[in-house]
Amino acid sequence: MTKTVEPRLVRGMRDLLPEQMLARQWMIDTIRSVYERYGFVPLNTPAIEYMDVLFGSAGEEAQKLIFTVNNPDFRGNTPESERLGLRFDLTVPLARVVAQYPDLPKPFRRYQVAPVWRADKPDRGRFREFIQFDIDSVGVESEVADVEIIAAICDTLDALGVGSYKVRFSSRKVLNLLLPFANIPEECALAVFRAIDKVDRIGMEALRSELTAESEPRLSESQSELTAESKPRLSESQVERIERFLAIRADKRSEVIDQLRDLFANIPGAKQEIDVLERISRHLDSLGYHDDRVVIDLSVARGLTYYTGPVFEAVLQDAPEFGSIVGGGRYDELVMRFLGQPIPATGASIGVDRLLAALTKLGRIQSRPSTAQVLVLRIDDSMMDDYLSITYQLRRAGIPTELYLGSEKDIRKQLKYADITRIPVAVIFGPDEKARGTVTIKDLEAGRLHATQVESREEWLLKRPGQREVPYANLITEVIQTLQRTRSV
Amino acid sequence: MTKTVEPRLVRGMRDLLPEQMLARQWMIDTIRSVYERYGFVPLNTPAIEYMDVLFGSAGEEAQKLIFTVNNPDFRGNTPESERLGLRFDLTVPLARVVAQYPDLPKPFRRYQVAPVWRADKPDRGRFREFIQFDIDSVGVESEVADVEIIAAICDTLDALGVGSYKVRFSSRKVLNLLLPFANIPEECALAVFRAIDKVDRIGMEALRSELTAESEPRLSESQSELTAESKPRLSESQVERIERFLAIRADKRSEVIDQLRDLFANIPGAKQEIDVLERISRHLDSLGYHDDRVVIDLSVARGLTYYTGPVFEAVLQDAPEFGSIVGGGRYDELVMRFLGQPIPATGASIGVDRLLAALTKLGRIQSRPSTAQVLVLRIDDSMMDDYLSITYQLRRAGIPTELYLGSEKDIRKQLKYADITRIPVAVIFGPDEKARGTVTIKDLEAGRLHATQVESREEWLLKRPGQREVPYANLITEVIQTLQRTRSV
Repeated sequence: MTKTVEPRLVRGMRDLLPEQMLARQWMIDTIRSVYERYGFVPLNTPAIEYMDVLFGSAGEEAQKLIFTVNNPDFRGNTPESERLGLRFDLTVPLARVVAQYPDLPKPFRRYQVAPVWRADKPDRGRFREFIQFDIDSVGVESEVADVEIIAAICDTLDALGVGSYKVRFSSRKVLNLLLPFANIPEECALAVFRAIDKVDRIGMEALRSELTAESEPRLSESQSELTAESKPRLSESQVERIERFLAIRADKRSEVIDQLRDLFANIPGAKQEIDVLERISRHLDSLGYHDDRVVIDLSVARGLTYYTGPVFEAVLQDAPEFGSIVGGGRYDELVMRFLGQPIPATGASIGVDRLLAALTKLGRIQSRPSTAQVLVLRIDDSMMDDYLSITYQLRRAGIPTELYLGSEKDIRKQLKYADITRIPVAVIFGPDEKARGTVTIKDLEAGRLHATQVESREEWLLKRPGQREVPYANLITEVIQTLQRTRSV
Repeated sequence: MTKTVEPRLVRGMRDLLPEQMLARQWMIDTIRSVYERYGFVPLNTPAIEYMDVLFGSAGEEAQKLIFTVNNPDFRGNTPESERLGLRFDLTVPLARVVAQYPDLPKPFRRYQVAPVWRADKPDRGRFREFIQFDIDSVGVESEVADVEIIAAICDTLDALGVGSYKVRFSSRKVLNLLLPFANIPEECALAVFRAIDKVDRIGMEALRSELTAESEPRLSESQSELTAESKPRLSESQVERIERFLAIRADKRSEVIDQLRDLFANIPGAKQEIDVLERISRHLDSLGYHDDRVVIDLSVARGLTYYTGPVFEAVLQDAPEFGSIVGGGRYDELVMRFLGQPIPATGASIGVDRLLAALTKLGRIQSRPSTAQVLVLRIDDSMMDDYLSITYQLRRAGIPTELYLGSEKDIRKQLKYADITRIPVAVIFGPDEKARGTVTIKDLEAGRLHATQVESREEWLLKRPGQREVPYANLITEVIQTLQRTRSV
């Protein structure tokens, strides 16, 4: 015997076994159907991109979060411009695509669902490969594109049956008004916005001390942030003005807007930006997305550097500990890096795996580790062509069916397999049934409790919990009726 | 202005723009629905695996085909056992999963559709990232599992509407009978089988010279082969016996089996292996997979080292130049590497991207670069809430709809956008329609020819090709009727 290799996963990676994978697929199919109803179109980009495409001029610290890939065309001696890495999001590849194919019809409204990789410190529930589902509208200046993104998020969360949620939105341009209002220098803007973004989590006291303290630059911990930041050192009076801004909280969007107008009454350009928020709010109202699920929350800033306008995120009210399971915003300048000129763009990203974890915890995922609705048992190996015939009749009638081909001859052990994989119906066809021209259909949902207590085939046939012998000719209709009873069709 | 980054793809990589991506998605959805009807269940594994898991003891040459990834936990000084790479197929990760989770219910019948990466020399139509769609039955000794794989391939190709195809199968165990028959040493087996596998492509003459010639070891070129091979040096009489084996060709599977029995009449153990082929053939017949589409072809060997029993592949008869677009076989020993003991397994892999290229060439892919079936035009920006209302009425009725939000104000240019993206219907609602309580529905399929010839909105409204003004209240029913006429629903 040769030395064996230990079967193991790379640190921070995971497998999705069938039950989880079926749940993820259901989520992806559901989200896709909503986005296609909005007329978004799919795009696919390769996992491997050039490092300069992925990152441009970002710092060393940030680049550490990228899984680098060795360029097979330059063994050992790869020029700077030929260095490769795995994508860490789907937005940067979109920007590359928009820049690379100038003839793409605009608006370009695309969705992409794909894994991304981040060499983060792995942690419980934080993996180094995870799925993102993004929608973006490229080439649309109008805030109606932002309205559509917010509405699409709501429709998606409704379609997924997540229970109650809040979509919170604000605008970087409104946040920018805070700079003149609180007399904050431009270069501190991003650090201040990121601190504000955390206020819900850390509280006002911690925010105050973070904004006034002196400390070293550190790497942001959040999965959505990929750049190093340094803490600002604000004065008490500056922080007091930020507090007045954050004190604007109301259940009604119109009230937040009124208070904003008051606070920024003397700030040049404020009216225009607040008008945008108001128009978004009004359009949302006209479509039925009211204050009960879409709120203006001025603490929403989103971590990423590239946002330039409205920003939004969604949280599940029954599972707030999962944080924002959707995030996005307008980023008119991302294509700049490639083209030297801006193209308006706005979009959102659903953290599919984080949302799946939340829904699983809330018990809102109904899945089983099988796709088959019928298991055809193998009673007598000499009747294999009969079993194949039954199996294919059911499959051709559109009923997902498995023929038991495992090593167990014992009918109880075959039923045990159906039990573990939660297949709802079994079909039994032995020499007796064949002689009588019948087939036995067993409702395993009804019989599941009994099945494990039975000792022998004879005993089990005697008890026959949830099972009926029917004419062979009625196979398909009887199976369908049984499935309808188990509500598994 | 800062220096810009050139937007470009890594060598051997590609983007799938919406039209191609919609076609790929349709293929994947179709294949998935067939495999789920068979009761296969989905599995997901990470893209990044340990190198020793991916490759074990394979040679240097072969490992060059793997994209290696730097382990972020060991910057610059990675121990041998912590080296990482991107998966090059879906079979090795499956073997790892089977070994790693001993409690997985068996049979484990899983499908996986995912990208794989190979640092091959890129070429026209050969990419370094491509999608495979695999099904495998693990834990089934019975050849009925192989029958199911072959049947599933046929059902999938039928569902995809590929036209006429042939599934060809043989068995490594029957090929092995050739070794005593032609007196070929065991260590030459794989090289001989690979040469035989190519006979369809290169012809008998080239095969003869390849089998008798003396030459250097070389790296196999095929995408499905990942190990270095050396050429055997056979005698004329050995080659003559191989030729007699390959001369067994018949349209009927039963004839091939009869001739095989004659040829190997004196080879010990031959009966048993030929019986397996015969049983597979008989089961296939009983299910309706006859000689017209499933043949026994003794030149089918498949390149991979790990096959141990039946092997199969499929070719499109209208596009033979694309080679085998499905390949697979039984590989009872793959899990050995991890567990030290064999687990029976059989499966097949569809080269989704290769098949898509073939179907595109055959004109069998019907796709357009849009998901929207209706484009709501924006005639007057002050009526935005009306446009949103129309858009959402249609979306909520399940009709994929896009509201034109691009920068073009001109109705002709908005229609041009619908034209490029081949959206079949436009909805027009201007101040006139609003005053009259109507909405105009334009069948763009009918009107597509005229639309580009029109100079002004007035002229265009005058011509009104394929367009009707209907009561606003009838919006949804009229749109549905128009879509039914354009056959786009």
